[in-house]
Amino acid sequence: MLKTLSILFAMCAMTAGALTASASDKPNIIIIYADDLGYGDLGCYGHPTIRTPNLDRMAAEGMRFTEFYSTAEVCTPSRAALMTGRYPVRNGMCHDKFRVLRNNSKGGLPKDEVTLPELLKTQGYATGMVGKWHLGHLPEHLPPHHGFDSYFGMPFSNDMMPAPDAPKGRERFFAENNDYWKTPLIRGTEIVEEHPDQRQLTKRYSDEAVRFIKEKKNAPFFLYVAHSFPHVPLFASENFRGKSPAGIYGDVVEELDWSVGQILDTLRAEGLDEKTLVVFSSDNGPWLIFDDHGGSAGLLKEGKGSTWEGGMRVPGIFWWPTKIPAGSIQREMANTMDVFATCALLGGATLPETKIDGIDISPLLFGTGTVDRPPFMYYRGATLYACRLGRWKAHFLTQPAYGTPKAEPHDPPQLYQVKIDPGERWDRAALNPDVIAQIKSAVEQHRAGLQMAPTQLEETVATAP
Amino acid sequence: MLKTLSILFAMCAMTAGALTASASDKPNIIIIYADDLGYGDLGCYGHPTIRTPNLDRMAAEGMRFTEFYSTAEVCTPSRAALMTGRYPVRNGMCHDKFRVLRNNSKGGLPKDEVTLPELLKTQGYATGMVGKWHLGHLPEHLPPHHGFDSYFGMPFSNDMMPAPDAPKGRERFFAENNDYWKTPLIRGTEIVEEHPDQRQLTKRYSDEAVRFIKEKKNAPFFLYVAHSFPHVPLFASENFRGKSPAGIYGDVVEELDWSVGQILDTLRAEGLDEKTLVVFSSDNGPWLIFDDHGGSAGLLKEGKGSTWEGGMRVPGIFWWPTKIPAGSIQREMANTMDVFATCALLGGATLPETKIDGIDISPLLFGTGTVDRPPFMYYRGATLYACRLGRWKAHFLTQPAYGTPKAEPHDPPQLYQVKIDPGERWDRAALNPDVIAQIKSAVEQHRAGLQMAPTQLEETVATAP
Repeated sequence: MLKTLSILFAMCAMTAGALTASASDKPNIIIIYADDLGYGDLGCYGHPTIRTPNLDRMAAEGMRFTEFYSTAEVCTPSRAALMTGRYPVRNGMCHDKFRVLRNNSKGGLPKDEVTLPELLKTQGYATGMVGKWHLGHLPEHLPPHHGFDSYFGMPFSNDMMPAPDAPKGRERFFAENNDYWKTPLIRGTEIVEEHPDQRQLTKRYSDEAVRFIKEKKNAPFFLYVAHSFPHVPLFASENFRGKSPAGIYGDVVEELDWSVGQILDTLRAEGLDEKTLVVFSSDNGPWLIFDDHGGSAGLLKEGKGSTWEGGMRVPGIFWWPTKIPAGSIQREMANTMDVFATCALLGGATLPETKIDGIDISPLLFGTGTVDRPPFMYYRGATLYACRLGRWKAHFLTQPAYGTPKAEPHDPPQLYQVKIDPGERWDRAALNPDVIAQIKSAVEQHRAGLQMAPTQLEETVATAP
Repeated sequence: MLKTLSILFAMCAMTAGALTASASDKPNIIIIYADDLGYGDLGCYGHPTIRTPNLDRMAAEGMRFTEFYSTAEVCTPSRAALMTGRYPVRNGMCHDKFRVLRNNSKGGLPKDEVTLPELLKTQGYATGMVGKWHLGHLPEHLPPHHGFDSYFGMPFSNDMMPAPDAPKGRERFFAENNDYWKTPLIRGTEIVEEHPDQRQLTKRYSDEAVRFIKEKKNAPFFLYVAHSFPHVPLFASENFRGKSPAGIYGDVVEELDWSVGQILDTLRAEGLDEKTLVVFSSDNGPWLIFDDHGGSAGLLKEGKGSTWEGGMRVPGIFWWPTKIPAGSIQREMANTMDVFATCALLGGATLPETKIDGIDISPLLFGTGTVDRPPFMYYRGATLYACRLGRWKAHFLTQPAYGTPKAEPHDPPQLYQVKIDPGERWDRAALNPDVIAQIKSAVEQHRAGLQMAPTQLEETVATAP
């Protein structure tokens, strides 16, 4: 009901907006989301051997953020935040133990959550999704029920349905054997392939994305391309396999880079480049426990699964020729919830009445002003571990990303000045009780306004898809 | 005698070369060398908050190396290698215990070593040096006795003469108090200031460099600008102090970046940009024991003092508009000894008859071909700790950069595939006995051809300068 009202409200806004802006003024919007790509994994973020000329060019023609954050440390909550602009604790898309939806989960993104494609549809956008969803795989949870006109991709991670006869444990991840993996491909809400060849996945996602752009080029469109890689198991097509100096991980990232090039080249060829905002990011940091099949967080500490910077600070590149100043490096913070808010507003929509945690960062993107940055909360599962306020980050709890050690509480919290110390090495709590007081107050205020939703990640069904 | 012969030989080559190339065909050459700047400390190498627009532009107009090495893990041997093209064990400019020359050292770069400015002088170059020398501070060791027409700068590190009444230990490094430091400034071979204001040092070095360029613009010239920073203690001028989001370390690096901009702008203004090769690098990795007064090696392991990658892999940017392809990322290895060889040959000189360990990398710089890369030896002091051959690096000894733990020997050596694993995390020795055999053979060959010179770093004099 809340959702219906919100969308009605947005439609009224559209009618009003139509007086000043026609559909053709609305930018096309493309979000390209990598899976487990680390802060340090691209050439333009300093990786020495992974070659990413298309993403480097995207940054050189657009804006590269150095403090861009996914809103969660693992996949499901991160994607929920991108789609809804809200901390995942508000909609049950996180869990301290389970962390993500699995192939036997019953839950999904709640129906009353308003998604970015739903908002943009009210503004006349054609909406399409290609790739990994991971916000519920039962048919009623799939993208077509959350605002996407079309969907093609894997419903969850590419490692979530190992073949019954595959080796157990880590070995199967390193084997580079497609027979070991059976995550299906879905079109619309139907499984169309039980056992796709993952070596072709990036190429197929790219082809779908390019086809969508060409088909929808006369409407404003929203396209969400959520690559399945570089999540393990790693696979690349024959054009990339064995080609990168950085090994299989490099092959896979270089194919993702190629895919970005395909999309940007299509926009150029179709004359859409000056009408299209393209955002590139990653759902969380690199999965370090997979050794050289995982990526690098660069100079940041830890990776996927952690609330240290390496777990949640990720590449963030924004591209819109003539609108976003070319070659700019943006050192203000931003996050994936901001992408929700900014894209919705650029598309002419009004933000839902529910609490939206993202803010409009278009003044940063267009170089027209500053933003009033709220404190940023680092959740691990449904628990708040850390908070960043301006230059400072306080850790109330710290914990290794994976493995057995439990969360270690800190009172006073550990305090890092992350602009000076992005690697979080020198705890400055003792010298800054005033900063800690401010951060504690910000966290209290956040908690006071927080209605935690029941988790969607616990209940299971008998059978996988 | 050997040196005299070498220089005579080079002069004959000049006479021959003069038939085909006039002095005006010879490029000007500028080497800008930072002190303790880490691999990860520049924007174009991925630092999130240190702003280096001039170096980023230099890279965008030139070539950025991702595997560029200083030839030593600390200051004195690193500078000896740059000036001579030789491993410092060949000329006594290293020592397992002392590591660098100190303010009471008697020694210096041996007279019979042929330096880059000496070679270039035979080809008609005007030669000047500004900044930190650290190859012997007694008058007979200073730059004017090693091929430089002019010299202005500090004879050794900016921390080597603490004031007698300064606090002891680490505290004085963090105080940012110029009264605590008394390293003198020298012009020619004379001390001209006993207690310079280090806050003005980068600015003064820059002014000297710019003046040199303007004065020598009609001759081919060689200029070596060896900044005293970001070695501790850190000081920046009023234009930069307190300005960087990255703190005092950021202030200092941003002033160095400004200085690079001054030099490149002068070249442009004087119409010399297409006639000048500019090389930017650092003498070793970041001095990590100095916390937020030290830099970052990015994704590399360890820092200054260590033979892990973070100790010796440094920024390496080469700029020569119209000759070096703009915006290129070079992923082949190179090192400071190659700078010696390449610059000497570009200037028309013939390399000395003595063993030169650097090679001509102009095919890489100009995009005209490949080079035959010899194995690279990682020395700590006078001891060979590691060797890189192609993609592989073997550590025969490992040791933390500073502190008490002794060298730990490894047999088989630890083996890292550094193109896949630049952070040196996964030892692949067990799987690659053939690679280890090749590297051992390369090390044996190196040792067989090695004449170790007596060290210059042991003997002391009674008084400092």
